[in-house]
Amino acid sequence: MEEIYSYDQLYDFCTAVFVKIGCSGTDADIATKALLAADIRGIDSHGVARLTGYVRLWEAKRVNAAPQIKITHETPSTAVVNGDAGLGLVVAPYAMQVAIDKAKNVGTGWVSVKNSNHFGIAGYHAMMALPNDMIGIAMTNASALVAPTFSIERMLGTNPIAVAIPAGTEPAFVADFATTTAANGKLEILQRKNAAAPIGWIQTKDGHSSTNANELKNGGSLLPLGGDREHSSHKGYALGAIVDIFSAVLSGANYGPWVPPFPAYVPMPENMPGEGIGHFFGAMRIDAFRSADEFKQHMDNWIQRFRKAKTVAGEEKVIIPGDPEREMEAERMNSGIPLVNAVVEDLKGLAAKFDLPFS
Amino acid sequence: MEEIYSYDQLYDFCTAVFVKIGCSGTDADIATKALLAADIRGIDSHGVARLTGYVRLWEAKRVNAAPQIKITHETPSTAVVNGDAGLGLVVAPYAMQVAIDKAKNVGTGWVSVKNSNHFGIAGYHAMMALPNDMIGIAMTNASALVAPTFSIERMLGTNPIAVAIPAGTEPAFVADFATTTAANGKLEILQRKNAAAPIGWIQTKDGHSSTNANELKNGGSLLPLGGDREHSSHKGYALGAIVDIFSAVLSGANYGPWVPPFPAYVPMPENMPGEGIGHFFGAMRIDAFRSADEFKQHMDNWIQRFRKAKTVAGEEKVIIPGDPEREMEAERMNSGIPLVNAVVEDLKGLAAKFDLPFS
Repeated sequence: MEEIYSYDQLYDFCTAVFVKIGCSGTDADIATKALLAADIRGIDSHGVARLTGYVRLWEAKRVNAAPQIKITHETPSTAVVNGDAGLGLVVAPYAMQVAIDKAKNVGTGWVSVKNSNHFGIAGYHAMMALPNDMIGIAMTNASALVAPTFSIERMLGTNPIAVAIPAGTEPAFVADFATTTAANGKLEILQRKNAAAPIGWIQTKDGHSSTNANELKNGGSLLPLGGDREHSSHKGYALGAIVDIFSAVLSGANYGPWVPPFPAYVPMPENMPGEGIGHFFGAMRIDAFRSADEFKQHMDNWIQRFRKAKTVAGEEKVIIPGDPEREMEAERMNSGIPLVNAVVEDLKGLAAKFDLPFS
Repeated sequence: MEEIYSYDQLYDFCTAVFVKIGCSGTDADIATKALLAADIRGIDSHGVARLTGYVRLWEAKRVNAAPQIKITHETPSTAVVNGDAGLGLVVAPYAMQVAIDKAKNVGTGWVSVKNSNHFGIAGYHAMMALPNDMIGIAMTNASALVAPTFSIERMLGTNPIAVAIPAGTEPAFVADFATTTAANGKLEILQRKNAAAPIGWIQTKDGHSSTNANELKNGGSLLPLGGDREHSSHKGYALGAIVDIFSAVLSGANYGPWVPPFPAYVPMPENMPGEGIGHFFGAMRIDAFRSADEFKQHMDNWIQRFRKAKTVAGEEKVIIPGDPEREMEAERMNSGIPLVNAVVEDLKGLAAKFDLPFS
């Protein structure tokens, strides 16, 4: 069912593919690091499993492999970046760096991005802030799969939010989550296993609760975090909406049901109100608030106190956001990255297409 | 069960009480407007129902009615504000104004606050940004009632997040929500009715699911948005944690289980790591990203498209965050504010204590 690849094997292959579609060597390196961050952190749905998808978007001329990424508007603490239809994997690190540079100057930096594409995992971009002693924030909209409370129409993407906060001796706090009850990747796992989904993840095309992990193919929708009104799905809906507005209405990208779909064979929505998909990034310099050392001591105290909170019987410890992904990263950098057969076959197809070695 | 009071009646009484405890006339006005914003918007748990609580905190010398609120650290886009143990109802508007002023200068403003007290509803403070053509953000930590995923210890408050976003001809988008499945106010309603709570709102002191709306008195906890691990309570936990860290670790306030309790009779936690409770505010000037007119046209388009999304059978429309509170405000400014008997008795007690008219 699975084969194991080393990070270096996948790095070499992905950079070669990105160069073949026309990326510069620098951009291929940037894109590959962002892409593989998903695989090493265990978010398998967002890593090399999507490489063929990115190539198909390029073939459909919806991805520009050599974009002229530009700041189109700015103030000392803000910017709008036009991604020129580039890979989000390249546009996002550029925009996050703009946010970091602004934070160096005036304390914080906030960048809204239009005319981009999917950027991989939000957490990777937010974490760029950490070595600068900054808090990093990253979010993106995505094509509509989620029905707001009381809706049977898909109006929002899974619109993730990531927040990375530096600590001292403890590892950083890194939250990175879709604003739905379940991320799409979790559904894909159930689909592969032919397993049922829990109540509260999905609804049918008529808005009834469903446990069918394939319900979206029948016109169903993912549900916002909370699941139903009684469990405050209106809060998950509001969070997804905020991500959509910060990422796209602020920048001039497409929003709501008009966000371009990831699969290249799905036609673009009609009457699109903006350009490409949108992201939003933030960087806040810790010492714009208090001394970084003091802050980090208190973050260590925060983390240590939460980690040792009394647990429900049978659970070992309370988890700090970022713990599972960091542990996975250590394991996979050491033992390699398992890829399911379908992904291996996809990559072999790309190897054949571009005359590249891959086995 | 209920009596109806006009906004003006309650305004006059509350300002008189605040003056009696030593607030200046200006501060009494500021505090009353923030407090009553909860009542008129229908968040009854956070309005005049809490007035006696504030007075008890003042009697316990935990609220300073004449604070010297100060900026203790700043950069062009950030500040830390020391609330000098003032009423959060007064400290929060001060700090939000600092954020707005910084946004005027450099595009955005971000203010973390220490040494404050409860600030009423977050949405009121976030909405201060709207007349300035800015997006407003407000959050606060609060004393621990919420168990993180896998924990049986209460480690976080209901830690609300509010985001207010201006529109054009449409009313503003105003999200304001606790990062728990259910806000405390909803539990209070069930307690008064002796009704059961839905599964997913509360757990027992051992971490079992509970439908007892009084479970917190037995050592139980509120649950983070999501409810349980299968429905992504770790996301609600992460959101509550982010609010806690932005509000208190950035500013030097108390965090996690050390946040001071609202009831004055509950002893303060031991070994507190900071000063008072913490808030966090943000203001982003729309035209720091794109022309405010353009943005508002697209917000109108966003709102209109979501409002007319196809609904589940039996539901009239998809709700835009802020709709219910705005409709409630129009109704209550017109027909008055209903107060339950227990609150009326509390207010009569205050009237007697301070020799003020109230009937």
